[in-house]
Amino acid sequence: MVLAKDKIQTKMKKDFPVEDVRRFLEPTPTVLVTSAYKGKQNIMTMGWYTVMEFVPSLIGCMITGSNYSFDLIYKSGECVINIPTAHIAKKVVAVGNCTGADTDKFAEIGFTAEAASIVKAPLIKECFASFECKIHDRKLINTYNFFIFEVVKAHVATRPKFPETIAYRGDSQFVLSGKNIKIHSDK
Amino acid sequence: MVLAKDKIQTKMKKDFPVEDVRRFLEPTPTVLVTSAYKGKQNIMTMGWYTVMEFVPSLIGCMITGSNYSFDLIYKSGECVINIPTAHIAKKVVAVGNCTGADTDKFAEIGFTAEAASIVKAPLIKECFASFECKIHDRKLINTYNFFIFEVVKAHVATRPKFPETIAYRGDSQFVLSGKNIKIHSDK
Repeated sequence: MVLAKDKIQTKMKKDFPVEDVRRFLEPTPTVLVTSAYKGKQNIMTMGWYTVMEFVPSLIGCMITGSNYSFDLIYKSGECVINIPTAHIAKKVVAVGNCTGADTDKFAEIGFTAEAASIVKAPLIKECFASFECKIHDRKLINTYNFFIFEVVKAHVATRPKFPETIAYRGDSQFVLSGKNIKIHSDK
Repeated sequence: MVLAKDKIQTKMKKDFPVEDVRRFLEPTPTVLVTSAYKGKQNIMTMGWYTVMEFVPSLIGCMITGSNYSFDLIYKSGECVINIPTAHIAKKVVAVGNCTGADTDKFAEIGFTAEAASIVKAPLIKECFASFECKIHDRKLINTYNFFIFEVVKAHVATRPKFPETIAYRGDSQFVLSGKNIKIHSDK
């Protein structure tokens, strides 16, 4: 496969607002985080997270205190990170546009909660993959709303190998995942 | 635009090794991190990072101690996060396949170092965007190799609005960024 240079213009550059670098750095697949605590459960969208370690399997996630899910996750110490595919993108956006404080998002938006293996938070049946997580380190929660989770169990659909996902860029703008290719160095 | 359901199979799922969830969660655009300290400079690839805040503009990044760049960044307190586009993917892979301990990656691989505005680490001319960073919080470096940087200056090419980038999945497998679309909720 030839990688086209397209119309990339690297000679001329402009200053760019530092608070908007998310446009380029955020495109991790947008995920749906489910949580449950004392009879309440919720779904939230999340785009700001990173893999931190293979073993144990650690994921660092930003979950702001203004989210209804924050308390459920903080108090239960658990969540599930679910990966939706592009064909349910509108439902993902709907999750992000309402609050669990006054909405049962499963019923309203049409997601099916399934029992997880280890944690009490539910899996979302319609998602391609679901990763059951327990809080591994609370050190940065108070300062940054940064949770470090350990993935303790992972469920992944049998096909395709790499699903088409969506990633948020801000301003209702999403980027779809594109072609999957092997790239080897020339050297 | 209609989002095709493709051949997504969400009914049957299999257990998946938790240490391999990176395959799905990692696809942030692979970036090139430049650093400089006491006459030495280097480039490294990075895929594990997340946006953490708008203002100040914070990016959390995993930079393992085994990287030659770790010391340069730790001691200088600075780096530049450069975003390469798909047409220079092979050069990006080359950066990841050698070490700055015995290689001048700029000269060997063919990247041009340009002076940054605020930090001493160089910009990479051939990249679409370059974000000058200073260490904002060292609290998680010792435990997790997790650096929290503040982006203090951002340089972005004037076009295209959204460049074609690559993101690593492990095992020489990359995903290209795909179509950029607006998605609004049905609700």
